[in-house]
Amino acid sequence: MNASLGSKPAVTTARVEAFSDGVFAIAITLLIFGIKTPVVASHDAGELKHQLWALWPGYLSFGASFAIISVFWIGHHQMFQLISRSNRTLLWLNNAFLMCVAFIPFPTSVLGLYGDQRVAIILYCATIVVTGVALYLVWAYAAAGKRLVYPGISLRVVRIASGRILVGALFYGFAIALSFVSLTASRILLLMIPFFYLLPSSIDPHIET
Amino acid sequence: MNASLGSKPAVTTARVEAFSDGVFAIAITLLIFGIKTPVVASHDAGELKHQLWALWPGYLSFGASFAIISVFWIGHHQMFQLISRSNRTLLWLNNAFLMCVAFIPFPTSVLGLYGDQRVAIILYCATIVVTGVALYLVWAYAAAGKRLVYPGISLRVVRIASGRILVGALFYGFAIALSFVSLTASRILLLMIPFFYLLPSSIDPHIET
Amino acid sequence: MNASLGSKPAVTTARVEAFSDGVFAIAITLLIFGIKTPVVASHDAGELKHQLWALWPGYLSFGASFAIISVFWIGHHQMFQLISRSNRTLLWLNNAFLMCVAFIPFPTSVLGLYGDQRVAIILYCATIVVTGVALYLVWAYAAAGKRLVYPGISLRVVRIASGRILVGALFYGFAIALSFVSLTASRILLLMIPFFYLLPSSIDPHIET
Amino acid sequence: MNASLGSKPAVTTARVEAFSDGVFAIAITLLIFGIKTPVVASHDAGELKHQLWALWPGYLSFGASFAIISVFWIGHHQMFQLISRSNRTLLWLNNAFLMCVAFIPFPTSVLGLYGDQRVAIILYCATIVVTGVALYLVWAYAAAGKRLVYPGISLRVVRIASGRILVGALFYGFAIALSFVSLTASRILLLMIPFFYLLPSSIDPHIET
Repeated sequence: MNASLGSKPAVTTARVEAFSDGVFAIAITLLIFGIKTPVVASHDAGELKHQLWALWPGYLSFGASFAIISVFWIGHHQMFQLISRSNRTLLWLNNAFLMCVAFIPFPTSVLGLYGDQRVAIILYCATIVVTGVALYLVWAYAAAGKRLVYPGISLRVVRIASGRILVGALFYGFAIALSFVSLTASRILLLMIPFFYLLPSSIDPHIET
Repeated sequence: MNASLGSKPAVTTARVEAFSDGVFAIAITLLIFGIKTPVVASHDAGELKHQLWALWPGYLSFGASFAIISVFWIGHHQMFQLISRSNRTLLWLNNAFLMCVAFIPFPTSVLGLYGDQRVAIILYCATIVVTGVALYLVWAYAAAGKRLVYPGISLRVVRIASGRILVGALFYGFAIALSFVSLTASRILLLMIPFFYLLPSSIDPHIET
Repeated sequence: MNASLGSKPAVTTARVEAFSDGVFAIAITLLIFGIKTPVVASHDAGELKHQLWALWPGYLSFGASFAIISVFWIGHHQMFQLISRSNRTLLWLNNAFLMCVAFIPFPTSVLGLYGDQRVAIILYCATIVVTGVALYLVWAYAAAGKRLVYPGISLRVVRIASGRILVGALFYGFAIALSFVSLTASRILLLMIPFFYLLPSSIDPHIET
Repeated sequence: MNASLGSKPAVTTARVEAFSDGVFAIAITLLIFGIKTPVVASHDAGELKHQLWALWPGYLSFGASFAIISVFWIGHHQMFQLISRSNRTLLWLNNAFLMCVAFIPFPTSVLGLYGDQRVAIILYCATIVVTGVALYLVWAYAAAGKRLVYPGISLRVVRIASGRILVGALFYGFAIALSFVSLTASRILLLMIPFFYLLPSSIDPHIET
């Protein structure tokens, strides 16, 4: 705000980060609704046990989506450590990214119920690819010409951050292609990708986690 | 608080903003439940694909509501950059506005399922009109006689802020009228309105985004 | 924390307030799920309109619960302006209160569907009475002997705060009694009570809203 | 972040705590969806009353899970009073813990519907055991060699904190074993365990609640 208006001290990106964290926290917690409580005749113990086991694709989808939303949250968190201020375009790009994050519970639920069908795998992976591209656009816009980032950031850090985001998107794109060869291989790949981000990164020394 | 009570330093509108952001973040993320996971016989691949495509009005409603709640969030965010303190009346007006925001997932879900019916379009647009009017009332109350805003704010900024809110409400009102002429035109208009707020505004230089 | 441990500067009640605000914001936004999207044959326009109108008790329940949760939020907010620190017992009393708040969407949904039955009214009002008593216990514990409140608070402010909470609980208790005479009168009363808190209070000058 | 980049002042664990609080607040509030609104013919008063009473196992599960998530929240809160900074591994361990917290509404709902069956009790208790172990791992990682905790923390505080977490997990493990002897005893035990944490602890003087 124009200082002459006598406003509050500028908190720059604080409220954007808080709002984003809210959407992340809610989307990640809503994933549990992708697993429907079984309906069984209440005294049939074997049937309940059987149905709880039969939900295993739902548990896996829940875990995979929890992990990938965690990855996006950590990435977003690190990115906003480098972004010093926001503007209308950044807000909209960030909200487009958040819209993708908020959409994730839907393909997760579809994958948990119909994981044996290619269309469910494609929908899931395509959602993650689009989410990754949206996050990349937030970063590319903020970092281009050091528009909204701290001036001291090195180009190498900008490139590492971009690379980490796009590599994830590529892997999910590859999982789509793989689904035309083997559904099982594709499913295993999409479950594994988030763990790639568990590894230490060359970006870590540059960022306060 | 009366300083003589020895209370914490006043944080004025901070908790109101945090609570509002919570409601915004939750309402925007709950929109995804407007899209129901299809129920199909689990080995019928073509049927699942068909049903996922058939949900397209739901995807559009989700996107339209995500965009308009984003608009309200950005507007609310900017407004509270100009508001210096709150009182009981402001809290209630703000909560009335938040009640409208929290209601949005319901007409969104109705529009996604029954977008081919005029009543669904009217319910949706009327909800947004009422939400816009509620936000206008928050602003009108706070800005009247510079009651709760920073004293340095110019009347021009007050008028621009009011205008931007009311113009959006007018457009949705027009979409209602249009639905009596052409449902398709009305649906296209209501999808388009949020993008009006993507354009830079003459209010931007006055406000810290 | 013991200062000798070299911990962070104490933020006393900040995280309790943030967590409480989260529960308030979520519970108030989840109320919308008490209104189920109608299921109609998709080309029967008159039927959809009819069903949307028939949901009016649900809309009223939504509004009434939004208003009363707002009242609890404002009251809790004001109370924690007077509370200077917390301890294990306060955390548990506060969480017992939040459990009641989180429960409210259930009786709200029951009231919206079965508002013509006494048991729905009793369940709803009893929930609010218990919630009010829980909030009173938080305050009574914190204020007793000025245990956890700012030392400068006058006994008069303590009594006004207690009174405002208990009067609300009494009114809902009266609505239960009234339901045995007239369901309609009881329903009207429970819709009206939150608006009592719209009125300015003698506590306002003592508290930073 | 590397100071030479000119970044914001480091807020270390603040955003992790905020995100965690979001997940806690959402998971705890979503528990209410484990209690389904009864469906009855709308003019049959006795039937509604009967069905509302018949939901009592759901009310108990709701209360038990609200209490145990409160316990985890208070424990997490106290733990992060002792943790001074985070790194990638801590973020992942913390997110694994949060995934368990976010999962809790599912076994809660199953227990509320099928509490008379051993498999529901085992699923519920096993979830809490795994959640407790995950929280223990967060703490064990942060405290090992005082890696991420304040240097002044005594080994005794580290041991008390570990002990309190593991004792809870042991109790739920015992409830599983007990379910093979008596379902009723097991159910009573699992309802009682959270109240163990109501008692004052020898850790309290060392931690700012």
